[in-house]
Amino acid sequence: MYCIGIDVGGTTVKLGLFTEKGELKKKWEIKSRLGENGKVMLEDIASSVRDTLKAENIPEKDITGIGMGVPGPVQPDGFVEVCVNLHWKDKYPAKELSGLLDNIPVKLSNDANVAALGETWQGAAKGYSDVVLLTLGTGIGGGIVINGKIINGRHGLGGEIGHIHVRDSEKEYCNCGGQGCLEQISSATGIAREARRIMEANDTDTSMRKFGNAITAKDVCDCAKAGDDLANRVMETVCRYLGLAISHAALIVDPDVFVIGGGVSKAGTFLTDMITRYYDYYTPISKHRGKVILAKLGNDAGIYGCARLALQEM
Amino acid sequence: MYCIGIDVGGTTVKLGLFTEKGELKKKWEIKSRLGENGKVMLEDIASSVRDTLKAENIPEKDITGIGMGVPGPVQPDGFVEVCVNLHWKDKYPAKELSGLLDNIPVKLSNDANVAALGETWQGAAKGYSDVVLLTLGTGIGGGIVINGKIINGRHGLGGEIGHIHVRDSEKEYCNCGGQGCLEQISSATGIAREARRIMEANDTDTSMRKFGNAITAKDVCDCAKAGDDLANRVMETVCRYLGLAISHAALIVDPDVFVIGGGVSKAGTFLTDMITRYYDYYTPISKHRGKVILAKLGNDAGIYGCARLALQEM
Repeated sequence: MYCIGIDVGGTTVKLGLFTEKGELKKKWEIKSRLGENGKVMLEDIASSVRDTLKAENIPEKDITGIGMGVPGPVQPDGFVEVCVNLHWKDKYPAKELSGLLDNIPVKLSNDANVAALGETWQGAAKGYSDVVLLTLGTGIGGGIVINGKIINGRHGLGGEIGHIHVRDSEKEYCNCGGQGCLEQISSATGIAREARRIMEANDTDTSMRKFGNAITAKDVCDCAKAGDDLANRVMETVCRYLGLAISHAALIVDPDVFVIGGGVSKAGTFLTDMITRYYDYYTPISKHRGKVILAKLGNDAGIYGCARLALQEM
Repeated sequence: MYCIGIDVGGTTVKLGLFTEKGELKKKWEIKSRLGENGKVMLEDIASSVRDTLKAENIPEKDITGIGMGVPGPVQPDGFVEVCVNLHWKDKYPAKELSGLLDNIPVKLSNDANVAALGETWQGAAKGYSDVVLLTLGTGIGGGIVINGKIINGRHGLGGEIGHIHVRDSEKEYCNCGGQGCLEQISSATGIAREARRIMEANDTDTSMRKFGNAITAKDVCDCAKAGDDLANRVMETVCRYLGLAISHAALIVDPDVFVIGGGVSKAGTFLTDMITRYYDYYTPISKHRGKVILAKLGNDAGIYGCARLALQEM
């Protein structure tokens, strides 16, 4: 028996065919075609799934289920009010896809949540039951797994750690409407902005200067690793707020482990060590707490998690 | 069939005999006798349970189980490293009590966690599956229930919301070793301290002045309700940090509802309205979030939750 994971993004849809034990048999992608409030994309997905099963010589009845991750909040009943990047509004995508595929059961969750489940099933957190994932990319995605299951939340806000308020003095607005969200400082976008700000506010010599306003999070991390003082000040700020938010999560759900993924996590243990220093500072209550580790599955975390979701009781 | 809830505190042990449907048949208390690392207290509890069952004419075999709440972190395997108030160290209290009562199954959790379960079962959050409780007393206790079950956490830190860091400028130390924990500001003790500080820092006329250094959280709330400016400034600070911590929890576990209990909650909707104002401010991402409501069961929340725990699969 097999299961299928489908990670839906605004640019591409990633698909994976898995054995029930978690072995990735085949992985492929299709372009995200927008239009007709998701109808086009779901039809593309359905026909791609059908083609692949045919090519692999797997009958539909051998598919236990399909899991799907979408970039937006999912209500407990599977309702999606809005996915900005997909141009979706007010729909039940799982029910719709299932209808297009002879009623194969389809389960739905948020993309960051399924990534957390993927890392728990076959990635950095394999063997653990309680996991918090932070994906540091353009924004910050968060996903929480407790007792092996995703915490979607009663209103679809479970794991929205990127929008935890951490900085009172922030004047710019986050796209959530808040001022001072973690994502504004510690995402890839946020790191670059912090670097531009610190360069503007200081005359100090810094190796970051040569990148100008096009500086990226990777540039900042590289400069910091090479010992640049201003770049290190940026990363200390970035990691202080990450450590603070991780401390909050430790004192609320207390997982086995915190997994850091996304593009920024390529900075490696330089990043996790610095985060851990602040996390320790903000959580003196006990040394027995979940450690901060690096993600393993990269961009595949989503399809792994979707496949795992397909196998779970709801 | 019946179950028994036992809420163990440093001064008294509260006990309750319940039907499996959640009806409180009998409620009683015994004094907490310390000594021999908990042996004395557990023996007192066992003989009190036995006496009551005899008096009520209920045979031991009609007891489905016992739940016990203790004021300290409980490890997933039931191990208690330390309960400061009980003078307990390195023990398995549930196993020990079960041994003293002909092996009636005994389940164990933290006292704030069981209170959350009690309010979920028969209190303010009845009918909901996902609940966060904050108990504002001498300290701040926190308890989290997801899918009807307590989140103890993998290291016993689940729901330790009182130790979430909220104030960078705090110079005094919390008993957890941190500086700027929510509990330092928004517990009954914290509210009184904030009031003393604001009176010392201001010459302004205030109705709080007549209480001097003996001012209590209730005095501050009463003065604030009566329109006193400085008292209102204290309560704004207290509620701002509560709203912030509740916002964090909403963006992590996203419960149906937040329940506010403990002595300070007697201030009623004056308190919850002010908390909600800040919670809204810190969580603009969505209006669909758990509401902040007042607890209902008062000091009985613990025994209710313990009894419910006794009935659950672990």
